[in-house]
Amino acid sequence: MSDRKFMLLALEEALKSVRKCQTPFGACIVKDGKVVSAAHNTVWSDTDSTAHAEVNAIRRACKKLKTIDLSDCTIYSSCEPCPMCFSAIHWACINKIIYGTATKDAKKIGFNELGITDRRLKSLGKSKVKIIPDFMREECLSLLKRFNELPNKRLY
Amino acid sequence: MSDRKFMLLALEEALKSVRKCQTPFGACIVKDGKVVSAAHNTVWSDTDSTAHAEVNAIRRACKKLKTIDLSDCTIYSSCEPCPMCFSAIHWACINKIIYGTATKDAKKIGFNELGITDRRLKSLGKSKVKIIPDFMREECLSLLKRFNELPNKRLY
Repeated sequence: MSDRKFMLLALEEALKSVRKCQTPFGACIVKDGKVVSAAHNTVWSDTDSTAHAEVNAIRRACKKLKTIDLSDCTIYSSCEPCPMCFSAIHWACINKIIYGTATKDAKKIGFNELGITDRRLKSLGKSKVKIIPDFMREECLSLLKRFNELPNKRLY
Repeated sequence: MSDRKFMLLALEEALKSVRKCQTPFGACIVKDGKVVSAAHNTVWSDTDSTAHAEVNAIRRACKKLKTIDLSDCTIYSSCEPCPMCFSAIHWACINKIIYGTATKDAKKIGFNELGITDRRLKSLGKSKVKIIPDFMREECLSLLKRFNELPNKRLY
């Protein structure tokens, strides 16, 4: 049940993002059953191509916990972390990734994804991070579809 | 000659970083022969595991040019961009990467690198970015070695 609650928080962030004319991606970081940070993508509003939901959530978590070591944390993301975010998760030593939709879903609606999966990166980088894909996939996909139908959506 | 000048700027940033007890990585972004931004790694000083030199330089360049599209820009980095930075470069549409030392050099002195090369990422992600490796490698390696000899160096 907790995983569901935390993914709902990531989804709420993603929804907030869509309402602010940003992109449909949200994430939250959890330690010992408590939310450390939650964030959505702010690439457009911050004019910062690195401001993905996961990167924003990691930055906030580091500030909040006053450390760059987020071991024992789990990150929940509405969509599979891209290689930038996967690697940011690696540097932060986060030990579990739970995500909803896959990179290929985001690519399908037009995001310029490199299209390298987290499982591939984990294997190539010999990372020990745990990856739980397709979690609440339908709910996450529904938000992506909703974004995709917006006439004023902005991709990158 | 220009490439050399810009790499020297990236190296100056890296040296500044070492002097500030940060890590030995610097980068600069250049467009039309002019420097758009230059930055070094600030992971420790900002308590931000994502604050690599390249990410910092991209954030500044986006702000300065008021766009997330850094097409026609080249990034010079004292060390091969890690997968986070490579992917950040991809999202920013930077079209050329020129770097000095390789990821394996940073890994060798103790950085917790995933160890996936930019060439591998380019190939897997079908990216069109141009990659010029080993540029002024000796000068860049010399700075890495200097950092490695510091008794108070902090790795991550």
